Amino acid sequence: MTDEIYRASTTAPVNIAVIKYWGKRDPKLNLPTNSSLSVTLSQSDLRTHTTASCSPSYPSFDSLLLNGSEQDVSGARTQACFRELRSLRRNLEGQDASLPKLSTLPLKIVSENNFPTAAGLASSAAGFAALVRAIANLYELPSSPTDLSRIARQGSGSACRSLFGGYVGWEQGKEVDGSDSVAFQVAPESHWPEMRAIILVVSAAKKGVSSTTGMQTTVATSSLFAARASDTVPKRMKQMQEAIQIKDFETFGKITMMDSNSFHATCLDTYPPIFYLNDVSRAAIKMVEAINAAAGRIIAAYTFDAGPNAVIYYLQENEAQVAGLFKAFMGEKDGWKGTRGDAIQASEEAFGKMKGEVGVAVDLLKEGVSRVILTGVGEGPVETKESLIDEKGQPISTSS
Amino acid sequence: MTDEIYRASTTAPVNIAVIKYWGKRDPKLNLPTNSSLSVTLSQSDLRTHTTASCSPSYPSFDSLLLNGSEQDVSGARTQACFRELRSLRRNLEGQDASLPKLSTLPLKIVSENNFPTAAGLASSAAGFAALVRAIANLYELPSSPTDLSRIARQGSGSACRSLFGGYVGWEQGKEVDGSDSVAFQVAPESHWPEMRAIILVVSAAKKGVSSTTGMQTTVATSSLFAARASDTVPKRMKQMQEAIQIKDFETFGKITMMDSNSFHATCLDTYPPIFYLNDVSRAAIKMVEAINAAAGRIIAAYTFDAGPNAVIYYLQENEAQVAGLFKAFMGEKDGWKGTRGDAIQASEEAFGKMKGEVGVAVDLLKEGVSRVILTGVGEGPVETKESLIDEKGQPISTSS
Repeated sequence: MTDEIYRASTTAPVNIAVIKYWGKRDPKLNLPTNSSLSVTLSQSDLRTHTTASCSPSYPSFDSLLLNGSEQDVSGARTQACFRELRSLRRNLEGQDASLPKLSTLPLKIVSENNFPTAAGLASSAAGFAALVRAIANLYELPSSPTDLSRIARQGSGSACRSLFGGYVGWEQGKEVDGSDSVAFQVAPESHWPEMRAIILVVSAAKKGVSSTTGMQTTVATSSLFAARASDTVPKRMKQMQEAIQIKDFETFGKITMMDSNSFHATCLDTYPPIFYLNDVSRAAIKMVEAINAAAGRIIAAYTFDAGPNAVIYYLQENEAQVAGLFKAFMGEKDGWKGTRGDAIQASEEAFGKMKGEVGVAVDLLKEGVSRVILTGVGEGPVETKESLIDEKGQPISTSS
Repeated sequence: MTDEIYRASTTAPVNIAVIKYWGKRDPKLNLPTNSSLSVTLSQSDLRTHTTASCSPSYPSFDSLLLNGSEQDVSGARTQACFRELRSLRRNLEGQDASLPKLSTLPLKIVSENNFPTAAGLASSAAGFAALVRAIANLYELPSSPTDLSRIARQGSGSACRSLFGGYVGWEQGKEVDGSDSVAFQVAPESHWPEMRAIILVVSAAKKGVSSTTGMQTTVATSSLFAARASDTVPKRMKQMQEAIQIKDFETFGKITMMDSNSFHATCLDTYPPIFYLNDVSRAAIKMVEAINAAAGRIIAAYTFDAGPNAVIYYLQENEAQVAGLFKAFMGEKDGWKGTRGDAIQASEEAFGKMKGEVGVAVDLLKEGVSRVILTGVGEGPVETKESLIDEKGQPISTSS
């Protein structure tokens, strides 16, 4: 083996669940108490770019540089991903003695997000999906996205869904070892490419309870949680997959909103209660309700993860009545600029119908939303030649 | 029968539930989907004063004057109360021919609250309890408070609990006609007279969904509601009654907080979602959590009805660490004045422990709380000679 530098790079997407993951039946393996389903978002708007590299010339420890700052890789979750991937590589090396023994070399990983981490957007899903995909590329593993989802899940539960593009389920599974708790593609992005999303980034006074801590407190203390996991979600998983198959936005939207509310209801039913929604989040809900009332049907659907940011799904054909109205009512915000934002026009008819009743909500959004992100359904991880590590093994910064 | 004016007067209290009533199994009879439990609050702070009167000289229709304005009495709920009470009077008249036939005479009722209706405090409980108790007094009915609770329930569900003082349960009952859905006294106020309450009246931008509409939408759409009604509340009813019997404030407080959160969780799980708590309500929760953390145990317990106002229960012995801290942190508010408010001093030790971490919450409370009401557990309806109708049948205004 020479002192060669081995490198491979990928990008991976963020996903925003429409049926939420909340609660672990096994915290160590990140095995969930219920299945979940998400939409993978376009990587031109939100993605993690990761280069995995290994070399005999590297210092003898694994390292991870994220957005220019060194991360601790000693945590059980990162270690589980490294261990599983090395084990797969070791199997290959065992079968073919001509392969370089990459599994024995220290890993150097460099990773960058194309969105501000301060925005509070769940970046761990894209992060662990990119990490696992990049190392799998480096090791030239024949593993399928489903196989890799099993590994990424151990890094961060929802990361398993970012191994696929389009509409992605995560089967909770029954096995104790988690072998059947994997992601699967419900439909590729090409099946229903018209799905758009607007993200309202809400400036929170303070970060709320971490999702890892929060979900376990919910499982332990909420008297309503069991009904969600055992009855509510299984029914919705079925309905949601059907809605996606037949491209029925009204059902998709209604279940999305109901499931977000159900998740936050179990947070409120936790002791002590967990609040992720604030008055600005509620103003976004009010706006979506007014938009749907003006349209006479569900054309917009809100969902909230473990924070106050609103993600609002809609179809391209209704852009003027959804994104257009948010733009018209909220006025200047970072994110409306650029080709996509400039093209968005409001429906004047809907604006007229709504303006009498959304005054308070609009004031709250103007004050509380720091930026908007316009995006839509997108593809899964993409291998790239653009490396974040140069041929000498040094990190290359692409940050602006 | 002469043209005599028959009159009787009572006062009746407000009650604030610690296990919430939300959901009707029979909307017409106000039969609930779960039992509930409340603390009756002192009438020196919050009460309805009602005089019921009848006379052959009155115009031939029933009337109700509340705080100086004529009310519609044609609604099914008020009519049900009138009908049931007249029926009981008619039975008496049938048994004793010497009794004047009051059941045939028009009713004139005058009612006044000693608290601002604009405060958004649920006044319908005190209102219907006073109405039913005053007419029962007028008719000289031998009915027990339990019998009257069955009638008041038909006016407003939670009114049935205002027929008793102290700690009061409302048994959901099983009968179709509602005959076993009545209030009962868990313990009189003298059993645990140290229970105090501070009410933070929050200025809401707009009145939320009415509880009558809201609770039926919850029953129809929340997937988590059934578990609350069938499992959560029955367990808590038992625990709460035991806690009251043995005067265990920590259990009383914990269940109070959990049940308020459970109720609001089912509101959030309603479609479309119902929000009664706002950022000011959450600031009150944060303060209570900080107060309990500083004390190292539960000495304060928040609860919220169908609105943003916080009611915080505590024991007299902890006044400096509960009401005192709210006073010290919030500063000048309408309601701190007067003998009771002036006497309240903050615990300096607790103030010091908390001040570093409640800044944001304190700002929200200062801005969003319009007044405080200091009160405590109190007695049930009290007959009074002070009449709101003079000997000529004319209303007397006592309003300031």
